[in-house]
Amino acid sequence: MKENRFEQDLDRNAANFVPLTPVSFIDRAAQVYPDYPSIIDGARRFTWGETFERCRRFVSALKMHGVEKGDCVSIIAPNIPAIYEASFAVPMHGAVLNTINTRLDAATIAFILDHAQTRLLLVDREYSQVVMHALESMQEKPIVVSIDGGVEPKEGEGIEGIEYEDFLAAGDPEAAWCYPDDEWRAISLNYTSGTTGNPKGVVYHHRGAYLNALSNVVVWNLNNHPVYLWTLPMFHCNGWCFPWTLAAVGGTSVCLRKVQAGAIYRAIDEERVTHLCGAPIVIGTILDATEEERRDFSHPVRIMTAAAPPPAAVLARIESEGFEVTHAYGLTETYGPAVFCAWKDEWNDLPADERAQRKSRQGVRYHALDGLQIMNPDTMQPVPADGKTLGEVMFRGNIVMKGYLKNPAATREALAGGWFHSGDLGVVDPDGYIRLKDRSKDIIISGGENISSIEIEDVLYRHPAISEAAVVACPDEKWGETPCAFITLRPNAQSPDAKEIIDFCRERLAHYKVPRRVVFGPLPKTSTGKIRKFNLRERAAALVSDRRASSS
Amino acid sequence: MKENRFEQDLDRNAANFVPLTPVSFIDRAAQVYPDYPSIIDGARRFTWGETFERCRRFVSALKMHGVEKGDCVSIIAPNIPAIYEASFAVPMHGAVLNTINTRLDAATIAFILDHAQTRLLLVDREYSQVVMHALESMQEKPIVVSIDGGVEPKEGEGIEGIEYEDFLAAGDPEAAWCYPDDEWRAISLNYTSGTTGNPKGVVYHHRGAYLNALSNVVVWNLNNHPVYLWTLPMFHCNGWCFPWTLAAVGGTSVCLRKVQAGAIYRAIDEERVTHLCGAPIVIGTILDATEEERRDFSHPVRIMTAAAPPPAAVLARIESEGFEVTHAYGLTETYGPAVFCAWKDEWNDLPADERAQRKSRQGVRYHALDGLQIMNPDTMQPVPADGKTLGEVMFRGNIVMKGYLKNPAATREALAGGWFHSGDLGVVDPDGYIRLKDRSKDIIISGGENISSIEIEDVLYRHPAISEAAVVACPDEKWGETPCAFITLRPNAQSPDAKEIIDFCRERLAHYKVPRRVVFGPLPKTSTGKIRKFNLRERAAALVSDRRASSS
Repeated sequence: MKENRFEQDLDRNAANFVPLTPVSFIDRAAQVYPDYPSIIDGARRFTWGETFERCRRFVSALKMHGVEKGDCVSIIAPNIPAIYEASFAVPMHGAVLNTINTRLDAATIAFILDHAQTRLLLVDREYSQVVMHALESMQEKPIVVSIDGGVEPKEGEGIEGIEYEDFLAAGDPEAAWCYPDDEWRAISLNYTSGTTGNPKGVVYHHRGAYLNALSNVVVWNLNNHPVYLWTLPMFHCNGWCFPWTLAAVGGTSVCLRKVQAGAIYRAIDEERVTHLCGAPIVIGTILDATEEERRDFSHPVRIMTAAAPPPAAVLARIESEGFEVTHAYGLTETYGPAVFCAWKDEWNDLPADERAQRKSRQGVRYHALDGLQIMNPDTMQPVPADGKTLGEVMFRGNIVMKGYLKNPAATREALAGGWFHSGDLGVVDPDGYIRLKDRSKDIIISGGENISSIEIEDVLYRHPAISEAAVVACPDEKWGETPCAFITLRPNAQSPDAKEIIDFCRERLAHYKVPRRVVFGPLPKTSTGKIRKFNLRERAAALVSDRRASSS
Repeated sequence: MKENRFEQDLDRNAANFVPLTPVSFIDRAAQVYPDYPSIIDGARRFTWGETFERCRRFVSALKMHGVEKGDCVSIIAPNIPAIYEASFAVPMHGAVLNTINTRLDAATIAFILDHAQTRLLLVDREYSQVVMHALESMQEKPIVVSIDGGVEPKEGEGIEGIEYEDFLAAGDPEAAWCYPDDEWRAISLNYTSGTTGNPKGVVYHHRGAYLNALSNVVVWNLNNHPVYLWTLPMFHCNGWCFPWTLAAVGGTSVCLRKVQAGAIYRAIDEERVTHLCGAPIVIGTILDATEEERRDFSHPVRIMTAAAPPPAAVLARIESEGFEVTHAYGLTETYGPAVFCAWKDEWNDLPADERAQRKSRQGVRYHALDGLQIMNPDTMQPVPADGKTLGEVMFRGNIVMKGYLKNPAATREALAGGWFHSGDLGVVDPDGYIRLKDRSKDIIISGGENISSIEIEDVLYRHPAISEAAVVACPDEKWGETPCAFITLRPNAQSPDAKEIIDFCRERLAHYKVPRRVVFGPLPKTSTGKIRKFNLRERAAALVSDRRASSS
């Protein structure tokens, strides 16, 4: 730069430079909206003034228990006030928040607590048993704070440790709290739910959390004071950063211990819920509601769904029920969704199924994501926007993770060449919207042709009797691989047989894409609700070897 | 920090760290909404695809004319497409944009061009004459690009230099453009309209511009695709960052060469304008519209007003006309508004004048502003939130300027103690909302009591015949100072005399606050529409000395 007059004597200082952090939002919410509702948890209701005060007590209590800046604080809890409060209090103390998936087994929990070097662990009593088993195997145990859910019956025996409300009560409601000294400091640690191998610890920073929290507002047209129902686990990518978003817009969190259709409809009716998020399974839960569970509502209810590509047929059905769906896509490594299907008014006049087809695309980048490309991973060149050429989805920007904790090799590999390599395969449509085709390991290669399992699943979901479907590769002597469909039927549906399903696909798919085998039954899922295709591939392979064994 | 595992091998890299800059928003808008309308300028209409292409041509043309990174590019133009395009193209080239107030005289323009070391100057032909005079006195003249307004008749003789459309036409529509190498780099240079002394050059950076552009979205509940009418000059604090905000939300800019009531109503009716900004004078213009100029409209139209505290009576009147007003406050040094009166639903049921009183308060901080305090400038201690104790309004955060260009002494003084000292005086109400009382130099001290000129003006504005009012101190032998009111009457209003005005005030104010003198006539204004209280103080002083002279 030739000139420097615009830099000279114009340095950063305390007046004009403050590290970006989402904890600034709760400070502001408590100042501006002290009497507005922050959290509703059954009969318990908190205001922003109260929530901030509880967070300051939390900060003070962490200090009293010897937790220091840079320590890790873990929590295993459903969507209750404590985990919302932890989302602010832990970073307000300069510590790092690790939210643990409540569906994990004791061994994995022990692995995480050990790998994260957790200093203090908060446990909802519902998870006492599994956590006690996890702790048994650990050499250096964290300090334990147990949370008595209050509104729900305790399950299992209580874990030892100070109770959360006592922990808070001992804290100072006016305790000092801190901004990070650098916005690049870690704010949270989220373990991937990897289907194989040990989970990896994804590190988020304050800067990214702040920017993604604001991106959520812009992407979703989120006006001030939404009423947000917690159908998305707060342990999952920090609830996609929505705890922070809600503080920015002075919104109300409606807690939900279990995602059940009756509770969802009740909250929509009684608390006037305006927004909720979740994996497509949440939409499925709403769609499968019984008549007794359903409630009429007339106000707009908006759903943001991500985590797995929702089948177009499911999208069409939920919109016909009066919900407005935004489809988003991302990974743990990108603070949750970083891509969404920005809706265009000109699509409103399309037939319902075409509208749903548009919406089932993953779409375009968030504001806080600076680069989204589908590239040939070997050449790192973008694929043409032809809707056909397959490449790997790559992300670049401030909402890409710092990296994996204590795993520099995996970090280097994931961020090689200045882009985060997602492992997801997709195409770019001529209008620039991306469309996922598959995880790279989920592509079926039959007679040398690539077959997208998603394309077949999309067809299966159009069948009225099918509730869930997953297609994987099955080894085949002639073709290399052929598609094998695993199917769960809707309750009370007329039960089609395998032939009927295959015929249904044949009418709608090229011949080589039609599943050769159909297996009925429940689908195995990961702790975050993703279908375990890895297990299904094993089962598909076993089917073939069984047959071989029996025919030999 | 004791632990560093959250920092180790987790450095910034090209995948996860990108400098914040609002130019990222136009790149995204062109990708996501290429066919959506970006700019409407009379019969000319542009899409985001076209606007981005024109900006890339602009970047290329700057390069062809020898403009380098870190150079200053100035523009003097009304709200036409060129100034919108410059808001992106100049920073996309790594240069610094200096928008010049169109109401300035030749000497001041020459001072600015010289002080900014402008390399290239764009001039709308309407300002040819004054700019030619400014250039005559300059030793090192910038390259000149003249803008032929097209839709408006040319006034005065044309200035020499390449015409803007030819300048663009020579550029490459696919030219490379750049992110800043550091988000702290200067993006723009805005000169204060200081009533005395030379204007100071306020330097903005990419980080602040990005954050304020997003703050505008959250503060104003700005959904995607607003239709924004340019009643606020784009030369004023970069149109308060709205050129960038509109790219973030894919909004449409409706250009407006002159702020006239008929044109405003026509745009609201024909272009379905949803949002506009401006000083209270814009509201006055709308209120003073003739019957022929008015148009009925039924869709919501939102006004954000700032720059001077709007009298409560004016707020009440404009809302009764069907406009929804958000009141904001800031200074050139804070990227325009950084504070706004966040509205609370519980105030909706108050009587109209009480609602307006609430709204006339300056309020609370923007999200991008981390600190807003009213402090005793000697002790730097916050005043109590008692609605009474006067202090100086201080700002801290990422939307405080880098400083004043080539003026380290003024920068140090303005940012002393880690806060930007605004020079504005105010109080904090018990609910935490701030209320301006006066500029420190505008306070009237009568018999040792501080009198707020704003309080008296607020009363005057309630008088139905008064269009504009300004109160200043008048020297007084007995009291030190007494209030003197300067008043402009509404057109066609029944004309009250001075006694009637004084009686009106006496009914509503403590005796010592009532103006002793009332002067009728037009009020002198600065180039940004602020009333020149400095001139009024001189006139008030002259009134007294005249009287003394005639009585001696």
